[in-house]
Amino acid sequence: MTVVRSEVRSGAYYDSAVLMRLQRALLELPGVADAGVVMATPANCELLDQSDLLAGTPRAGPNDLLLVVRAETEAAALAALGQVDALLARRRSVAAEAFRPKSLETAVRQLPEAAWVLVSVPGRFAASVARQALDLDRHVFLYSDNVPLEDEVALKQAARDKGLLVMGPDCGTAIVGGVGLGFANRVRRGPIGLVGASGTGLQAVTSRIHALGSGVSHALGTGGRDLKAEVGAITAHQALDVLARDPGTRVVVLISKPPAPEVVTRLLAAAQTVGKPVVVDFLGYPPPARRLGAIRFASTLAEAAELAVGLLPADAGASATIEIPQASGFQSPSGRYLRALFSGGTLAYEAVLGLQAILAPLYSNVPITDAQRLPDPLRSQAHTVLDLGEDIFTVGRLHPMLDNDLRLRRLGQEAGDPQVGLIWLDVVLGEGAHPDPAAELAPAISAARQHRRDLEFLALVVGTDADPQGLDSQVERFAQAGAMVCRTTAEAVEIVSRRLGQRPAPPQPPVALDRLAPEPFAAINLGLESFYASLVSQGASAVHVDWRPPAGGNERLMALLARLKS
Amino acid sequence: MTVVRSEVRSGAYYDSAVLMRLQRALLELPGVADAGVVMATPANCELLDQSDLLAGTPRAGPNDLLLVVRAETEAAALAALGQVDALLARRRSVAAEAFRPKSLETAVRQLPEAAWVLVSVPGRFAASVARQALDLDRHVFLYSDNVPLEDEVALKQAARDKGLLVMGPDCGTAIVGGVGLGFANRVRRGPIGLVGASGTGLQAVTSRIHALGSGVSHALGTGGRDLKAEVGAITAHQALDVLARDPGTRVVVLISKPPAPEVVTRLLAAAQTVGKPVVVDFLGYPPPARRLGAIRFASTLAEAAELAVGLLPADAGASATIEIPQASGFQSPSGRYLRALFSGGTLAYEAVLGLQAILAPLYSNVPITDAQRLPDPLRSQAHTVLDLGEDIFTVGRLHPMLDNDLRLRRLGQEAGDPQVGLIWLDVVLGEGAHPDPAAELAPAISAARQHRRDLEFLALVVGTDADPQGLDSQVERFAQAGAMVCRTTAEAVEIVSRRLGQRPAPPQPPVALDRLAPEPFAAINLGLESFYASLVSQGASAVHVDWRPPAGGNERLMALLARLKS
Repeated sequence: MTVVRSEVRSGAYYDSAVLMRLQRALLELPGVADAGVVMATPANCELLDQSDLLAGTPRAGPNDLLLVVRAETEAAALAALGQVDALLARRRSVAAEAFRPKSLETAVRQLPEAAWVLVSVPGRFAASVARQALDLDRHVFLYSDNVPLEDEVALKQAARDKGLLVMGPDCGTAIVGGVGLGFANRVRRGPIGLVGASGTGLQAVTSRIHALGSGVSHALGTGGRDLKAEVGAITAHQALDVLARDPGTRVVVLISKPPAPEVVTRLLAAAQTVGKPVVVDFLGYPPPARRLGAIRFASTLAEAAELAVGLLPADAGASATIEIPQASGFQSPSGRYLRALFSGGTLAYEAVLGLQAILAPLYSNVPITDAQRLPDPLRSQAHTVLDLGEDIFTVGRLHPMLDNDLRLRRLGQEAGDPQVGLIWLDVVLGEGAHPDPAAELAPAISAARQHRRDLEFLALVVGTDADPQGLDSQVERFAQAGAMVCRTTAEAVEIVSRRLGQRPAPPQPPVALDRLAPEPFAAINLGLESFYASLVSQGASAVHVDWRPPAGGNERLMALLARLKS
Repeated sequence: MTVVRSEVRSGAYYDSAVLMRLQRALLELPGVADAGVVMATPANCELLDQSDLLAGTPRAGPNDLLLVVRAETEAAALAALGQVDALLARRRSVAAEAFRPKSLETAVRQLPEAAWVLVSVPGRFAASVARQALDLDRHVFLYSDNVPLEDEVALKQAARDKGLLVMGPDCGTAIVGGVGLGFANRVRRGPIGLVGASGTGLQAVTSRIHALGSGVSHALGTGGRDLKAEVGAITAHQALDVLARDPGTRVVVLISKPPAPEVVTRLLAAAQTVGKPVVVDFLGYPPPARRLGAIRFASTLAEAAELAVGLLPADAGASATIEIPQASGFQSPSGRYLRALFSGGTLAYEAVLGLQAILAPLYSNVPITDAQRLPDPLRSQAHTVLDLGEDIFTVGRLHPMLDNDLRLRRLGQEAGDPQVGLIWLDVVLGEGAHPDPAAELAPAISAARQHRRDLEFLALVVGTDADPQGLDSQVERFAQAGAMVCRTTAEAVEIVSRRLGQRPAPPQPPVALDRLAPEPFAAINLGLESFYASLVSQGASAVHVDWRPPAGGNERLMALLARLKS
């Protein structure tokens, strides 16, 4: 038996990283079995409940901090909660070690050569901070999510009028002049410039460009909503223009979830005028052709990288081929479901795109069709693809690429469902991301597999050999834990197809081949005489029936005839 | 001044070909300026009205035949109408020359080796004729459209249970054992087998396979609704199974408009088990990858053919390359609209698919998105793509691939609209189609261009050098009339893109390149400390702001502060 005790702190602001560290510190206290430190949104409360961390309905709202401890005894629980202030103070004193400006104005005076301001404060404060940065004539990398759409439009219009860029909100990734902002893989500098309305999309493509031996000039993020009609792709248009003029960029890659129809034509028209080859991957947007003028359309993120590298002039280097371990020989656990738990939103979306062709019914919180919409993101059903970086999961919580807590809890939940046969995780390495995801995820995989030998795991690892986490060691530890490891969504989909794809039985009875096209060919024709003439002119035997409708086609007479017959 | 006189014949059946010939015969009578002979559906009546062939509302319903003559004098009009019976009788006596059975049973006794029955009688009679053919153990090629969906399901289930195929309803094209049924291009026999839920789709792909030097084993049509959920792709599954077992087929091509989601996974799973490479083009369906197991996904019909030929073993021949005349150097008539008048439904759909990436707003009666739906198919607006083979246009009327009357009238209408800059026509050659489309369409193009030199025409010619119409002579006559000529939708879309695609101006003021990524890189960070650490570890100069929200994040205090400030 354990007891749950909680505490509410109203209307107070804490950095999500501070909350994560507080939760971990509470877990280390004597007698504590589990702990939760979250902003008390409805979704977060339900997540606490799923972890048996909710005793009754908390008297707290979405702007209140909820501290919960489950402990062996009430005394231990209360003692742990009593430590909260001391634990928070400990963090503060560490942070205060270095001199740090308290305001953006001071920071700009301190580092006047800074052209960029990175903003990752909570969404409700982010727009005003970004506005301040624009007022100070700085480009903005706006990582924060949960920013209102009207604020995004106003910020981007203001930025455009000043010749400045606002990348975001909800911009996870950028590489500017070789420096990664936010989550970014370490890739060599090179001739390929990217514009991406998707963070993990940019990571997947830049990583693969690196693996193919080439490199990146700039990778400019726009935020996921830039290509919506309301925003009109302001940042994407600016970014295309930048890459058009940038002498270091020789090929351009443009990636996004499907843009609004009214945005597509203008953006593609702008892409035509870049004056350099452009590779477009609008995930889920049916390509108008493989090639249209200067534009090549890719079907997957991996293919976008491959096409871009292939379009480079011969002198631009890049020739390495990637060796991909081919998964094969697995037996299909029929009637089992896939649960995919993603930290990368675009990777999740690309997974839905690939999986919808092989698994049904398929649900997701990043659906492509309305019918795929998962009714409750907190509960999987049938085959489910979950983006744990969606706004509902990230209020007052670190992104799942930084904090594995939510994913580990959900993994445990899915592993306990006997209908689940395969769990797919993405593992996104690089700057800004978790320093060692394998250290937390691989043991969870081992543990789950010890419990259920028939449960399989698939790890999609996105990263480069230059990333701080160490690509090889990450891959190795997932493989040792018993997971299949792959490097692109396409590979992963292929594996899922072999493991879980249904194989329908051929129709019975079969159509007899010798009755399909006996030679010489013979047929009877009713209706258009020209079809009869055509058969004859092709050397087939044919008879034309001088067909007349019953009762000369008179509807009333026909009805009468039918009634007489029956 | 002309006068219009009309006559109604109630509830009588006439073959559409007979009606077309009657209309032409009326036009040749003295004093007749124009004539219409149609079943009196609302759409047909409105079309008559658009040609000034409707004097008041006719007292006629959709099952009544409406005969209209516009002549110089009332006497001439009435005289022409007085000839109708004689003209109809003339036709009958010609048809009666050869001995022809009056019923399917008799025909089967006359040609017992006939494995196929071709049915192109009017839709409301077609199901019962097809049912009769199945009862007689014959495969059915069901060209008729306007057949109820429930009849299709019942027919296909009955056929499946007997190991028979029902291709259709609304199946325009098939090639079985080298013989074209319905509309089919003459192509050499070869190792590529096709399944198509689309007539002109099959024609476009088989023509291109032929042009690439390879050939076709069977091209099996399914009808356009086979891949809807209600039908469940019964025929497509049977056809895949046939091609899987057929020793003459080495590569399979599967083409369709996007199937219902619940149909996709089963059909693709079946395609995986064919045991041969399969090329899939679900027009407008976002491909899950370029390759998935044995399946390759194509973006266009032309690419489907190219992929299929490329997948053949080296010994299977096929090496010819196609020389495609590149249209270039045209000036863009900005602000002008495209009007595309198609006879081929899938060609129209593929055009929408390509054009939606470059033209906006775009409307069609075969839309991909709801917003593209043309409110009234009888009236174009903005950029419009029209499938003149849609059911509304074909009640009691020959298909536009057989009868150019409707298309010529619409062409005249569009050419008279000063907002129209480019008119795109498809010209589908082959067995079963109009014997000489250039003879009627090219003069209309010449005439329109004499009226308006700024009006351009684009002819997409689908056919082979073996087709009865003569590919070269058709192409030549369209070119002589002043039309640009191309052979694939992708080429045509490319031309439209150069002629009508908008070129947006780059953003002003431009983002200054030297302020984008100054070296060494410097940035200010607010929010996640890990982003600051990451900047520093990459060698960038960075300052982290010890940011706190205003009023410590207390909402009420913040609101108060904001009020005090304003």
